[in-house]
Amino acid sequence: MVILGGGFAGLAAARALKGAPCRVTLVDRQNHHCFQPLLYQAATAALTANDVAWPIREILGRQADLDILMDEVEGLDPEARQVRLSGGTLNYDRLIVATGASHDYFGHDEWAAHAPGLKTINDAIHIRSRLLRAFERAEASRDEAERAALTTFVVVGGGPTGVEMAGAISDLARGALSRDFRHVAPEKARVILAEAAPRILSGFPEPLSRYAARALERRGVEVRLDAAVKSVKAGEIQIGEDTLRVGAVVWAAGVRASPAADWLGIEGDKAGRIAVGPDLALPGRPEIFIIGDLASACDARGQRPPGLAPAAKQMGDHVGARLKAEFSGRPKPSSFVYRHQGDLATIGRRAAIVRRGGWSITGYPAWAFWSLAHIYFLVGARNRLAVAATWAWNYLTFTRRARLIT
Amino acid sequence: MVILGGGFAGLAAARALKGAPCRVTLVDRQNHHCFQPLLYQAATAALTANDVAWPIREILGRQADLDILMDEVEGLDPEARQVRLSGGTLNYDRLIVATGASHDYFGHDEWAAHAPGLKTINDAIHIRSRLLRAFERAEASRDEAERAALTTFVVVGGGPTGVEMAGAISDLARGALSRDFRHVAPEKARVILAEAAPRILSGFPEPLSRYAARALERRGVEVRLDAAVKSVKAGEIQIGEDTLRVGAVVWAAGVRASPAADWLGIEGDKAGRIAVGPDLALPGRPEIFIIGDLASACDARGQRPPGLAPAAKQMGDHVGARLKAEFSGRPKPSSFVYRHQGDLATIGRRAAIVRRGGWSITGYPAWAFWSLAHIYFLVGARNRLAVAATWAWNYLTFTRRARLIT
Repeated sequence: MVILGGGFAGLAAARALKGAPCRVTLVDRQNHHCFQPLLYQAATAALTANDVAWPIREILGRQADLDILMDEVEGLDPEARQVRLSGGTLNYDRLIVATGASHDYFGHDEWAAHAPGLKTINDAIHIRSRLLRAFERAEASRDEAERAALTTFVVVGGGPTGVEMAGAISDLARGALSRDFRHVAPEKARVILAEAAPRILSGFPEPLSRYAARALERRGVEVRLDAAVKSVKAGEIQIGEDTLRVGAVVWAAGVRASPAADWLGIEGDKAGRIAVGPDLALPGRPEIFIIGDLASACDARGQRPPGLAPAAKQMGDHVGARLKAEFSGRPKPSSFVYRHQGDLATIGRRAAIVRRGGWSITGYPAWAFWSLAHIYFLVGARNRLAVAATWAWNYLTFTRRARLIT
Repeated sequence: MVILGGGFAGLAAARALKGAPCRVTLVDRQNHHCFQPLLYQAATAALTANDVAWPIREILGRQADLDILMDEVEGLDPEARQVRLSGGTLNYDRLIVATGASHDYFGHDEWAAHAPGLKTINDAIHIRSRLLRAFERAEASRDEAERAALTTFVVVGGGPTGVEMAGAISDLARGALSRDFRHVAPEKARVILAEAAPRILSGFPEPLSRYAARALERRGVEVRLDAAVKSVKAGEIQIGEDTLRVGAVVWAAGVRASPAADWLGIEGDKAGRIAVGPDLALPGRPEIFIIGDLASACDARGQRPPGLAPAAKQMGDHVGARLKAEFSGRPKPSSFVYRHQGDLATIGRRAAIVRRGGWSITGYPAWAFWSLAHIYFLVGARNRLAVAATWAWNYLTFTRRARLIT
């Protein structure tokens, strides 16, 4: 059987299949799994690429019945039960598609070159270079207006990623960079968070959205609501009627599923996701499972799992366990039920929001909870220690050693 | 005054000028200083980019009278005493040129695309990706001959860098990668070190060259002597009369100085280096100093400092101290005398050679000495600890966490 994608969903499925009497091949176009919840920290030089990405072969390497292939999917043939890869074809008896999602520019793909999104390690390295290079260019400039433009940063989209990025850019400018320059005062950098809706973090209750907006403003981020982006060009963005010259734009607005619906010759939803029921199998194709961000799933209780790492993991666990039972001749587990573990969003140094069941916390306790939760979920003991040490160091010294432009 | 280049020579000059009554501007096209002696470890996934490169602003950031510019030199006008940068011009009263050296393909620049050299962090990341990708492609291949070709690696040039790279690739294949694959046995990878001369490490006495060749062979490296490269193409190299299909080629043969001689409108030596006397000033231009790998220097005792980090540092120290004395109205120090601290070359895990004055050591003691010396010379206390911890971890567990393809 074949798993496409080594994100949270694909990895969980592969792990759950450990010891099953079948040969499993996991395909990913990268050789590493990326811990997306911390990617914004790599994009703002707080962590390095190696802190938030690990070789898939290291994570799953001890699973002897598992093949790992670094290759790119070019298409699927559900009739012949084949996956077409750049390097050849793979036959499957069962297929798990977990190829995730990327950014959506709402029909303006020409904006992508000037407003990179944040989904992969290369995205993070690219955004880090853009942010740091903008400060370098400002330092070299002798024109006051140009300096102000180059130290203006816009984050588009007020979801958790946008909030994290805006907070982290502000922390970077006010903290680690504040003593780096002679002609630029990074702590005067303008960071603008532009959200088209009337409030940020619309997935959270309104008081938490208000808290987050205030916390961002306290650290110098301008939060603009009802502010839709009209155009993005090199060094320029139009938000509503306002045209701004900028040093860098980060895109954290739309999500678009990978083109698996096209590969399967079916119709996706408007974000390209594929609808599946509580068994997570493709309707009419019981041998194909769709999990993670690619799935528009509806579980046995009618809940729709969100596009978050824990939901992807749970779907992977479920399908992996189900197939293992099937291959082993044991009874299949019952249908998928999503267990929501809570919502987390971090705003920056010592500010976050946590909502879980009936309660919520904000501020320093939420930030401490967020840090512990993320260290806990990181893969591998050594990495936990390394990230914890890096964070402790950064926190105590306000430095960010990862600020290389490569 | 202006310093061009943030390598060992330029940084040492900037540091030596600390507190001098003059404004110093240091220009580098990168925002980071690269610790070149450990670059081969980043190229073979033993250390990360962040372990061997640090922001120049972090290293020199506390020096308040120093400007740092990330910009590229386009030319010099010695008459007008101006440096032309991509972003504008800089005037100087004194100029220190420390722009270093790069690879030389002996007139075959078309080989560069297929045989990358190792001078910058981006080079290291590029070589790391090539090596790891070759193993990935071999794993995906179903053709035995293709697999063998993809796991054949050639290092061109038997100087210290070539010896280090060949040993490190072999260690990578036999250690960290040995359990990663199902269809490829990385420990059977062929690593070939091709040297055009009759022996490797020609800067060392012959017994040490012989020891190094034997130590390489013990770890599975084929050492080919009198083996000149005739051509390099994608996936193929011709050494002498022998044409080999290969997974990757690393170039560690020639050195070519940066084009400073052209900027100055003078004639360099055959490697493009600029001849200077014991004051390290350009003949006829007492306000311009040439230091580091760019200089073909002859010190007050007639010694020619080698193209090594300690020599570059000493030249930077000397010119910085001299100018500081001059600006402060104190007597100038006497002419430059190079103090040779010894020669070091490492072959891999637990094998190295050290030569210092009349004595030399090899094997494990030399390797331990090499490790301690490098940790000692690394910039910054935290980095020393981080590198030491990474090494200790890698040594004890045989893992290489940095093996990301980006």
